[in-house]
Amino acid sequence: MDFKIAVLAGDGIGPEISVQGVEVMSAVCEKFGHKVNYDYAICGADAIDKVGDPFPEATYQVCKDADAVLFSAVGDPKFDNDPTAKVRPEQGLLAMRKKLGLFANIRPVQTFKCLIHKSPLRAELVENADFICIRELTGGMYFGEKHQDNDKAYDTNYYTRPEIERILKVAFEYAMKRRKHLTVVDKANVLASSRLWRQIAQEMAPNYPEVTTDYMFVDNAAMKMIQEPAFFDVMVTENTFGDILTDEGSVISGSMGLLPSASTGESTPVFEPIHGSWPQAKGLNIANPLAQILSVAMLFEYFDLKEEGALIRKAVDASLDENVRTPEIQVAGGTKYGTKEVGQWIVDYIKKA
Amino acid sequence: MDFKIAVLAGDGIGPEISVQGVEVMSAVCEKFGHKVNYDYAICGADAIDKVGDPFPEATYQVCKDADAVLFSAVGDPKFDNDPTAKVRPEQGLLAMRKKLGLFANIRPVQTFKCLIHKSPLRAELVENADFICIRELTGGMYFGEKHQDNDKAYDTNYYTRPEIERILKVAFEYAMKRRKHLTVVDKANVLASSRLWRQIAQEMAPNYPEVTTDYMFVDNAAMKMIQEPAFFDVMVTENTFGDILTDEGSVISGSMGLLPSASTGESTPVFEPIHGSWPQAKGLNIANPLAQILSVAMLFEYFDLKEEGALIRKAVDASLDENVRTPEIQVAGGTKYGTKEVGQWIVDYIKKA
Ligand SMILES: CC(C)[C@H](C(=O)O)[C@@H](O)C(=O)O
Ligand SMILES: CC(C)[C@H](C(=O)O)[C@@H](O)C(=O)O
Repeated sequence: MDFKIAVLAGDGIGPEISVQGVEVMSAVCEKFGHKVNYDYAICGADAIDKVGDPFPEATYQVCKDADAVLFSAVGDPKFDNDPTAKVRPEQGLLAMRKKLGLFANIRPVQTFKCLIHKSPLRAELVENADFICIRELTGGMYFGEKHQDNDKAYDTNYYTRPEIERILKVAFEYAMKRRKHLTVVDKANVLASSRLWRQIAQEMAPNYPEVTTDYMFVDNAAMKMIQEPAFFDVMVTENTFGDILTDEGSVISGSMGLLPSASTGESTPVFEPIHGSWPQAKGLNIANPLAQILSVAMLFEYFDLKEEGALIRKAVDASLDENVRTPEIQVAGGTKYGTKEVGQWIVDYIKKA
Repeated sequence: MDFKIAVLAGDGIGPEISVQGVEVMSAVCEKFGHKVNYDYAICGADAIDKVGDPFPEATYQVCKDADAVLFSAVGDPKFDNDPTAKVRPEQGLLAMRKKLGLFANIRPVQTFKCLIHKSPLRAELVENADFICIRELTGGMYFGEKHQDNDKAYDTNYYTRPEIERILKVAFEYAMKRRKHLTVVDKANVLASSRLWRQIAQEMAPNYPEVTTDYMFVDNAAMKMIQEPAFFDVMVTENTFGDILTDEGSVISGSMGLLPSASTGESTPVFEPIHGSWPQAKGLNIANPLAQILSVAMLFEYFDLKEEGALIRKAVDASLDENVRTPEIQVAGGTKYGTKEVGQWIVDYIKKA
C-alpha cells in the first residue's frame, strides 16, 4: 500500500510519542514493502498559540487528504479551570471529530498480564477482561443545541435514526468479528433518546442472528464493568455515556498508559492513545510511547493489514517481557528506559523480525 | 418527638425488609421516649397492579402528611425490556421525587471492615474510603422536555440557577459537617449546563472559606473513584451524572447491600436502601435488612437525633461482628441468618442497650 499519513503531534508529551509512532510506522512499512509519506500539521494549544485555532483549516485539509491521521494528545494546563476561555484545546478535538465525521470511537480495553497488579481491581476480576467500548462521537449533548445565560442553561441530547443506525452497525460488525456478544448501554427507562436507540437496536438485532445482544442501563453498566469486566465483549453507547464508561473501562485494566483508540467515520480515520498530553512530563523522555505505537497497530488493522498489526503487538509484548519499560511500569530495581529507547527497541525488534 | 412515618414497602423483597425497618424504628422510639405512628401506602408494581398507577394520589397524600417516608424498593421483571410499556414502576419513583420536591439524593459510601474482601477493588484502596455522593434529583434530562418519534429523539438537560444553588448549598453544608472537602463534578469543557453549575459553585465557594472546593470532569471522576476512592469527602453532581456515579460508588465498597440513602428537599424526606427489589428473593427470608435499617438511622440523624442514629449503627456493627448475617455476607461455615432473624437480633440489641 501507499500510505499518506497526517501526523498531529499536539501538546505536552504529544511530540515525543508521535516521533516513536512514526518510526514504528516506517519500520513496518519498510519491512512489508509499503510506501509511506507523512504530512505534519498543528493542533491543540500549540495551534492556538500559533494561529489562534486549535484545529485550523490547514490542518483539516491535511487530514482530509490523508489515508489516516496519527494523533497524539492535546491539552495545556493554562486553559484549565477557566470555563470562560474563548478558545480551548478541546474544541480542536471536537472540531476534528465533527469535520472528519468521526462518529465511531473504538476503545479496546485490553489487559497486559505483566501489568495486572497495577489494576485497582482484584487480579482475578481483570485477568480475563478483554472488551471493546464503542462510543458514538459526533452526536448527543456534545453537539446538540445549547444555551447558557446567568439564570439558566441547557444542552440537548439529540439523535436521529441514521446517526444511531450507523454506529450500531459498527458495533454489530465488531461483535461478529469477536465473541459475538453485544451490550447496548442506554437509559431507556428515563430518556427518550435512549428509547429510540433501544428500538433501533432491537430492529437491527435480527440481522445479526449469531450475535447475542443484551441491553443494560448505564448505571448498571458502570457497576458491572467493575464487578465483572470479563462479562463484556463489545459495548456500544451514546456520546456522553461513552465518555464516562470508556474512561472507567480504561482504568480497570491497569494498563491505561498502553491503550490505543481509533475514531472512524465518514472520512479519514484517526488513531491515537487514550491518555492525555501529560504536560508535566513534556521533554523529559519519560512518557510511555506504547499507546501511540499500538495505535499504529490499529491503523494497519483498519486497512486489514493484520500481519503488520500483529508484528507491532508482538514487539510491544516482547518489550514488556524483556522489561524494556518506561519508569511508571518498570519493575522494582529494573532499568528505566526512556521514551526514545523503548521506541528504538521496538523499531529494532521489527527490523530483525 | 412525635413521628408520623409513611411506610412504602413496594415490590419484591421490599415488604420483608420494610417490616424490619419499622421494628427497629419502634424499638429506638420506645427506648428514647419518642412517639411513632405508621401510615402504610402502596407504590411501584404493586400499585400498578392494584390501581394502575405506581405512585397514586392517595400515596402522595400519605407521604405529604408524614414527617418522613420509609421507602423500601420498587421494580418487577415483568416490566423489564419492554421500553413501550405505558406504565412502569420506575415512573412511580420519578413521580415521588418530583411531587415531594426531593431534589437532593444523599448517598454515603461507607466501607464495613469485615466486608472489604467483597469489594472488587484491592483492599488497600477501599479501606479508607468514606464519602458522600450528593445527586441532584429533580432536574436535568430526567425532567427536561423530551421527544421521540420513529426518526429522531431528544432529551433536554435543563437547569435553572435556583435549582443549582439549592443543591450546591446542601453539598457545601455537608462538607462543613465532614472533612470540608467538596468535589463538584461536571462536564464544563463540553456542556453549557455544566458551565452554569461551575460558575455558580465558584460564586458560592467564598461563602464557605473552610471548604476546599475542587472541580472535576465526570469522566475523570469515574476513574478517580476507582483509582483513589479515599480522595473524596463530599461529591456533588447533576441528576444523570449522579445516577451513574452513585451506582459506581456503591459498588466499590463491597457493601452495596448495606448502603442506605436519603432524598430530601421541599417537603417530606424519604429514606431508603440503595439496592433494588430483588424479585427472585421475594418471600425467601434471605434479603439483607441492614440497608433498610441503616436508612432508619439516617432518618433519625436527619432530625438531628444523633444518639438514636448512633445506637442503630452500633447495633448493625455488632451484628456483623457477631456474624449474625444474611447468607450473601456470611463467612464460610457460619450460620446463615434470615431477614427476620437479623432484624430481631438488632431490635433485641437496641432494647438491651
Ligand atoms: C476533552 C473532552 C472534550 C473529550 C470528550 O469529552 O470527548 C475527552 O474527555 C475524550 O473523551 O476524548
Ligand atoms: C429506576 C431509575 C429511574 C432510577 C434513576 O435513574 O434515578 C434508579 O436508577 C435510581 O438511581 O434511583
